[in-house]
Amino acid sequence: MVNIAVLGYGTVGSGVVEVIETNWASINKKAGNEINIKYVLDLREFPGDPVEKILVHDYNVILNDPEVNIIVETMGGLHPAYEFTKAALEAGKSVCTSNKELVAAHGPELLKIAKAGDINYLFEASCGGGIPIIRPLNSSLTADEIDEITGILNGTTNYILTKMDREGSDFADALAQAQANGYAERNPEADIKGYDACRKIAILSSLAFGRTVNYQDIYTEGITEITAADIKYAREMGYAIKLLASSRKVGEGKFYAMVSPMLVSSNSPLFSVNGVFNAIFIHGNVLGDAMFYGSGAGKLPTASAVVADVVDCAKHLHRNIMMSWSSKTLSLMKIDDVEGIYFVRVAGTPSEKMEAVRALFGQVDPITIPSVPGEFAFLTGCLSETQFAEKAAQLPGGILNRIRVHE
Amino acid sequence: MVNIAVLGYGTVGSGVVEVIETNWASINKKAGNEINIKYVLDLREFPGDPVEKILVHDYNVILNDPEVNIIVETMGGLHPAYEFTKAALEAGKSVCTSNKELVAAHGPELLKIAKAGDINYLFEASCGGGIPIIRPLNSSLTADEIDEITGILNGTTNYILTKMDREGSDFADALAQAQANGYAERNPEADIKGYDACRKIAILSSLAFGRTVNYQDIYTEGITEITAADIKYAREMGYAIKLLASSRKVGEGKFYAMVSPMLVSSNSPLFSVNGVFNAIFIHGNVLGDAMFYGSGAGKLPTASAVVADVVDCAKHLHRNIMMSWSSKTLSLMKIDDVEGIYFVRVAGTPSEKMEAVRALFGQVDPITIPSVPGEFAFLTGCLSETQFAEKAAQLPGGILNRIRVHE
Repeated sequence: MVNIAVLGYGTVGSGVVEVIETNWASINKKAGNEINIKYVLDLREFPGDPVEKILVHDYNVILNDPEVNIIVETMGGLHPAYEFTKAALEAGKSVCTSNKELVAAHGPELLKIAKAGDINYLFEASCGGGIPIIRPLNSSLTADEIDEITGILNGTTNYILTKMDREGSDFADALAQAQANGYAERNPEADIKGYDACRKIAILSSLAFGRTVNYQDIYTEGITEITAADIKYAREMGYAIKLLASSRKVGEGKFYAMVSPMLVSSNSPLFSVNGVFNAIFIHGNVLGDAMFYGSGAGKLPTASAVVADVVDCAKHLHRNIMMSWSSKTLSLMKIDDVEGIYFVRVAGTPSEKMEAVRALFGQVDPITIPSVPGEFAFLTGCLSETQFAEKAAQLPGGILNRIRVHE
Repeated sequence: MVNIAVLGYGTVGSGVVEVIETNWASINKKAGNEINIKYVLDLREFPGDPVEKILVHDYNVILNDPEVNIIVETMGGLHPAYEFTKAALEAGKSVCTSNKELVAAHGPELLKIAKAGDINYLFEASCGGGIPIIRPLNSSLTADEIDEITGILNGTTNYILTKMDREGSDFADALAQAQANGYAERNPEADIKGYDACRKIAILSSLAFGRTVNYQDIYTEGITEITAADIKYAREMGYAIKLLASSRKVGEGKFYAMVSPMLVSSNSPLFSVNGVFNAIFIHGNVLGDAMFYGSGAGKLPTASAVVADVVDCAKHLHRNIMMSWSSKTLSLMKIDDVEGIYFVRVAGTPSEKMEAVRALFGQVDPITIPSVPGEFAFLTGCLSETQFAEKAAQLPGGILNRIRVHE
């Protein structure tokens, strides 16, 4: 028998208990052992809930119980999750987690402790919810050098953008609806400002490139400036607007990472990833294009990924699963030097403004759509962020908005 | 150092050599060991090719060399691949393969020998080319009971169907173009009749359901009867026609598997999988929907999957990676009892025929499109294959074509 303890009986933690109960027989078969939930840790009481009998409030009960082999950390946040995880690993207990903040902030340190103790620190659920992506990155794409990993990693923002696209609504209305439907939190900042996606792409990039990508180094822009007019242009031009979290190798030792809303063309498999679904696109130098798609959040899909980690820990109780994530920092290019194409909206008419636009941006063509009068748009050639900002600042009257184009 | 031997220096075999050379340093790092290609076996000579120096014609040289740890079988076909693989495993050498025919025919037997010898028989490249799917099925989706696995598993037929859709061409023309462009073989039977997809879904279903699905038991229908008119209707109705290989659990102990062209709605992530790309859709009872997308064939993507298996074998030289594929047969429902919705085309006009159609199929609505005159179509309710066939036979004048609808 393998005894586990679940830290935090919130959405994901209670999902873990539910998944293990639901698929009890098949999970035990695949683990090659019987999984027993010995404790659930939470500060709250749950009178009448079946976990009442195994509920504890003191973490030391779990930490000091030599029968507990695996700890499931679904508390979220940095503290006390960090201290609890570290203590568990140092006590020789494997840890499975959905906590992207903790993995992004302390992943390499915790992996190192796990490796030293011949146990495991697994975090499949930290990125892309139920989508298997950490394990494929770590053990399936080993023949490749990955040069791009780009994900739709936040279900809330993808739901909002899909709603804006389908209903023509403005950002504020779509956000209010997402909150009313339970797809956005009352304080939606971590989602709509891109912080959540930033943590996730930091983790995925660290695994893909083998060195630590610090989330603090990643340029991050949310979706709060996206308007109904932007979406109308995008539709007309055959694009969708998605919040992409992307990291790329653009030359020997040259990497950049960025979270930003982008225009995605209909040729990309990311184009049709809608609603609360997530997807991770990967390009490998021999594999070519691949994409992993699924439920990026939600109680049961996320719990499914956590429990798959529990099964893996049970199969490797005293054997470390090697993770290619070194604690050395991968230094990223300055955002100023990153190059790309920009979609730009300008007030006025092409006949008034195109001369000035072309003097700055070269032979670009104006795009006008009847449903957005009094302005026009254009796509630039390839420019660095600095070049673009300089040119945009020189345009008489400035610009209305600019969105990067994913290529 | 880990010594490997490559059996068969054809497309995939030479791809394996190329991938190992291209990503030599990173592959060795991930394997935790240096991978050395000690032999290449082929009946042919390759004068001037770098493998000339390590080319052998006698398999016994490889089999009897105790330094060879891993054998890469990229010969294809059943014989002598079966005998060579069995002998290798019995001699304590792990085997990695792209050979779907062999895995579908003898998978459980070969896995059993590998398990007994604490070595491995891995076959990531046998399904979906470069797409990581075998390993995720085996080690990531372990918390779930999978109730559907449906794939676009054959790049040739997907290329042909995409071409028919985009260019309005007929099957014969699209096939000829696919042959001219190297996407279809001169003898295209295995692809266009669905035999290739059948082997692959047999393998995936066996892993998903844990018992052997015999490919001979799978109802298999190819794309040779799909016409330009079918595609026109599908477009008009918001569907795409795809060759789907699908297996499903439809009740306790009730499974079916089928390869057949189907109408796929634009709500499905499989809808936008075009050209030579492949994708595998999975539904788990707690995970919900997931999809894996990528290059389903091609020299380097397939070799990427084979080499990832080599890396895994190198990491587990004397340790078996458990595969949940029992040699017990999973008995499938008779195709006659499988239920579904059918798209049906009928010659004549709705005013002439709808009375007879409704007498047989109930309150269905006629669909007419100007570009296909002299006929109409309708979608049935849910019927078993037998029920449908009986009704279709009773319709005065019969039907022009019927295509199943994927739901």
